[in-house]
This record gives sequence, C-alpha cells and structure tokens, in this order.
Amino acid sequence: MLKKERMNRILEKTELDQLLLSDPYALFYLLGEWFYPGERFLGFLIRRNAKPVLFINSLFHAEENDETETVYYSDTDDVTGIVGNYTDSSKILGVDKILPARFLIPMMDRQIASSFELGSEAVDLTRAVKDEEEIELMRISSKINDQAMEQMKGLIHEGVTEKEAASKIMDIYLSLGAEGFSFDPIVAFGKNAADPHHMPDDTVIKEGNAVLFDVGCRYRSYCSDMTRTFFYKKGPSEEAERIYNLVRSANEEAEKMLKPGVPLCDVDKKARDIISQGGYGEYFTHRLGHFIGTEDHEYGDVSQANTRKTEAGNIHSIEPGIYFPEILGCRIEDLVLITENGYEVLNQYPHDIEIIG
Amino acid sequence: MLKKERMNRILEKTELDQLLLSDPYALFYLLGEWFYPGERFLGFLIRRNAKPVLFINSLFHAEENDETETVYYSDTDDVTGIVGNYTDSSKILGVDKILPARFLIPMMDRQIASSFELGSEAVDLTRAVKDEEEIELMRISSKINDQAMEQMKGLIHEGVTEKEAASKIMDIYLSLGAEGFSFDPIVAFGKNAADPHHMPDDTVIKEGNAVLFDVGCRYRSYCSDMTRTFFYKKGPSEEAERIYNLVRSANEEAEKMLKPGVPLCDVDKKARDIISQGGYGEYFTHRLGHFIGTEDHEYGDVSQANTRKTEAGNIHSIEPGIYFPEILGCRIEDLVLITENGYEVLNQYPHDIEIIG
Repeated sequence: MLKKERMNRILEKTELDQLLLSDPYALFYLLGEWFYPGERFLGFLIRRNAKPVLFINSLFHAEENDETETVYYSDTDDVTGIVGNYTDSSKILGVDKILPARFLIPMMDRQIASSFELGSEAVDLTRAVKDEEEIELMRISSKINDQAMEQMKGLIHEGVTEKEAASKIMDIYLSLGAEGFSFDPIVAFGKNAADPHHMPDDTVIKEGNAVLFDVGCRYRSYCSDMTRTFFYKKGPSEEAERIYNLVRSANEEAEKMLKPGVPLCDVDKKARDIISQGGYGEYFTHRLGHFIGTEDHEYGDVSQANTRKTEAGNIHSIEPGIYFPEILGCRIEDLVLITENGYEVLNQYPHDIEIIG
Repeated sequence: MLKKERMNRILEKTELDQLLLSDPYALFYLLGEWFYPGERFLGFLIRRNAKPVLFINSLFHAEENDETETVYYSDTDDVTGIVGNYTDSSKILGVDKILPARFLIPMMDRQIASSFELGSEAVDLTRAVKDEEEIELMRISSKINDQAMEQMKGLIHEGVTEKEAASKIMDIYLSLGAEGFSFDPIVAFGKNAADPHHMPDDTVIKEGNAVLFDVGCRYRSYCSDMTRTFFYKKGPSEEAERIYNLVRSANEEAEKMLKPGVPLCDVDKKARDIISQGGYGEYFTHRLGHFIGTEDHEYGDVSQANTRKTEAGNIHSIEPGIYFPEILGCRIEDLVLITENGYEVLNQYPHDIEIIG
C-alpha cells in the first residue's frame, strides 16, 4: 500500500519533479513491502502531480494498489526504454545514491532525462524522522534486545569461545519473537573488546576478561542495536573501573542533552569532552552515534562534522567507547528517540558494572 | 598481494586502457584481501602499462605491496578529485557495474575521463575461469557441505519447525571448519518445498513430508551450494517417486555432457527436455544453474538464453527442480567443475531417495 504521506514529505524536501528510487529500503518505506531484486532492475518513479510507477521484473510480485502504477518487465525486455516511457526527458531525473552503473549508464546513453542528479537526500532526510508506526516498532525491537541481553550473559561459561557464544544469539532472538539480526553480533573478550571492529573468533574466555556484546535484532523490519560491557567472574581493576565509569557518564550526559534543535556535533562533543577530560580522549576513536531504522546504519550521524540539528522523530545510537588495549576496551550503547520535548531511551538494560559467569 | 596474472588476464579481455573497480569481490580477486568500505568509496584503478592504484579510506588498512600504489583519503577529502589525479581524462574510463550513482555522477560532473562505460564484463569473464588455487578451495568448501548435509538430516525430528532446523545449521558449518553461510539456508517441508524461493518459517514437520535443504558454506571465502530433498519417516508416493527420479535423471544426464566448448543453453536444454518429456516441463520454473565462486551467484548462468560455451575452470551449479505443489517439490543440486577433458562433480553426497527421521 502506498504510504502517500511519506511520499509527499519527500517531494516537499526536493525541487526535482521526478525521482527514480531503486533502494529496497526506500521502496519498503513507501510501499510497505520488501523486494529482493538481486541483480535485476527495481525502480520506483515518484513524480510531482502524477501517479508513482513501480518497475519490477515479472519474476517477482508486487501487491496491487490503486495509487501506484505497476509495470512488469521480463528478462528479455529493454528496461531502460520502458523506464524512459515514463520519465519526462526534458527534465532532470533525480536518482538515488545506490543506483548501480549498470542501470545508470544505459539511461544516460538513451537520454531518458535532460540530466541526472543525485536525488536521494530528500528520501534520507524524510526517513530520518520516524512516524508513530515506526517509533512503536523501534520500541518493540529494542525491548526484545533488552530481554536478549539478559539471556546472552548466560552464554558465557568456562571454555566458551566468542564464536560459540555468538552462534547461540540467533536462537535467543527468534525465541523472543524477532525475525533475525540487524547486523552480525559482536562478542569480544578481553583485549578483543579494545578493537571496535572485532568479529567473534576462537578466543576463549578468561577470568577477569571484559565481555562486550554489541548486538541487535529486527522486529517487523525495524532494527535494534545495543552494546553492554560485562566482566567475567571478577570485577574491573581500579583503572578499568575508572574507564568504565567515564564511558557510562559520557553516554548518560550526552543522552541528557537531547531534545529537538540540538546540533548533532554538540552531542558528540559532550561525550567526547567527558572522555577527554578523563584523559582517554585519544582512545575514543569513532563517532558517537548513527541513525537507525530499517537499516542498522541510516543516513545521519552523531559526529563532530554533523552540524545538522536533531528533530523530533529522529532515532539514533549514543555509543561512546574507550579502547585502551592494556586495561579495558569498553562501549555502552543505547538507542534514543528525540521527542517533542526531550528524549526517550529505547533501551532499558542498566548501565551498571555487572560481573557475570 | 597483487595477483598480477589475474590482472593481466582481465586487461587482455578488454580494449579499455583504464578500469576503475569498486566491487569488493573484484578487489579480493585481485588483491587477496577483503575490504568492507560500507558507504565509503573504495576503488582499484587498473591501467595498461602503469601500476594499479588502490584508493581507500584511511579508516581502513590495506596490506602493502610493491606492485600497487595505495592512496589513502580521509572523510573530509575530495575523493573524486583524488581519483581524477590518476585517470587519463582524455580516455574512456571503464567502471564496474556496481559503482553507485553517488560516486559515478560526481566523477562525470568533474570529467575525470573522456566518457564512462561499463567495464566489468572483462573482470566477470576472468573470474568465471577459476585457477588452481581457487579450484582447491571450492573443492574443500563443497566437501564440507557434503559432511554438513549428513548432519543436517539429524536436525529433523518430531515437532521441529523449518526455522528451528535452519537455526542449527551455522553451528554445523562452524564445527566443520567453514567460516559461515554462502547464503541463508533454505529448509522447506512438504508443500513449502514446491516454492523455490521459500524461506524457513514456523511450519512443523509431518510424516511423509519432503524435506528440502538448499545450503552452502564459505571456506576461505569460497562458496559451496548444494540441494538435496529427503522424505520424512515415509517414502514417496508413486507419482512423487517418478518426479524425484526425473529430477535426478535431469541432474545426472546434464552433468554427463559437461566438457569445454558446450553451449550452456544446451546443458539447460538437456535437463529441461528430460523433465518435459516426463510431463512436468511447466513445473521446472527456473534456469538450470548459476556460476559461483567467492559469490554464491556470479556472472554467468546455465540457461536457455546463454549461448556462451563452457570453458575449463568454470564452476557452476546444476540444479533441476520440479515444483508440483500437490505431490512433490524437489530439487537436486550439485556444483560442477569443467576440466580440460570433461567435468568433476564437487559434491559427493548421493542422489538416492533417502528416508530420514
């Protein structure tokens, strides 16, 4: 079913009169349906003052709806020509950022528009402001993630490797009603937790290790994403505890300043200043957060470079970390929603130091 | 390390003097290293008579090698301009099929080449002819898949759902030394097996059901892919057995004709004719096979439309199926290698009718 209100919000944000979207995430956003075109062309042409048109290979099927024209093509059809029948060749065509060269170059060669511009920012900015339906699904997805984190602790026992623990996480999510991962889970023990990009390997748990879970699931297509850092069988050393509490305070103080109209770079700065003043600034090596929705990483981030202001309906992560290899690698991540008057943290799992195992 | 022989084979297959590759699979093929650029630009410029150049965000790291120039850029750099410093703007630039519009359009606006063409077919055709190193890894990957299939049968017991069975497959692969899936496994019971695109759901196994596993793993980046159809607790009906044996014979007879120089459409036709003559032609609804390597589906297929001839070193699937909802959905798939004189089937798991559970 065409989500007309979302389409109109997109057209309000651009001066282009025709936009050809091919990103399955954008199509799901506008049509409520997932398409998996593989290497085949998939397009959704939205136009000012005309019905949108869905172009789809006849191997697939789209739900019928009166407000969209659906054009099926076959593998032997000239798809560029078919799309060209619907574009206004005297006007610019906005294409989305992911349109692959194998479709774009033939469209240019055939001049199906006067010129071609990147047109997907209007979609991205619209998707960054979640509506009520989306917010509710994001809340449920994060709630499942909270419950899953409680169970994941139980995966850590003597002799277990990161990979073994990670391989059990899918079952936890499925049993809680999620559809799957929003990204491959990170399970990192000890020094591995000091590499923010570490992927689970054959490292075996040892007493005193930090245990970092950076995990998320999908619920009715909407993602969760949370990180907690535990300690196995023994609490942190004095310095490790100081590091943990700095990360915690960077997370909580950054969250507290959230409300509509705050420059995203100021939020990053708040967390970064706390960690820097604690003496670990150089070990916080990434941005504070990223936007999220049906994709784990969506357009928009909480970084020093992003001067854009928060808006009610934004959902993004707050995930400060300190990666100090000899002592502790630690990250604490929540998802937050910007509300009309402030913010709502979607994750309820506590931030306290917790000894497990 | 630059795989120079592979690069030279690519340049022999094209008239273009400069090719900008951005597909991580192509880069792995040429550099033996995986890059995960996410939304950031990744490029490998190969040139006739000049060193190739790797463009990579400084957040990532590439192994040093003397035969490649590596250019790091940062998030605030003008990456289009940097690439333009290395291209010959008086010549055509070949780009690969997946280069997203967000990079291609700025390169065109800045005229870093005289014009832009799709240039990745030369890479795809080169990748379709596996070298000895690749063949050995593909053999191991399929051997693991054979062993895994033996264990997967044990997942089917009273009360189990497709999703539950599918959720255990990763553990089997990891325990056998694979790195992960080559694609999300398909487990389909009964009528669900008659939908070739079915994904595991909450369907519970019933006595007499067909049990279809379409599964594959990755070993040192190389994929396996095999399908077998079993019967749960009770053998097939007479008609189901006839269908099974037709599929089996389509598979085996198509395999027997493989050697260098056979048009791929003829291989498809062989299998299709057998199924048609058996009376089920309209229920074999897809092509006979696809090429495979580091990607589960690579360029090249075994279909009615592909008149290209097999070459020694090709590896592709042979996967006839009959999807006859009331009686049986069944597919039997192997990977095959075209050798100098004939073929080698990479899967050893038998084709016999097998009752499990």
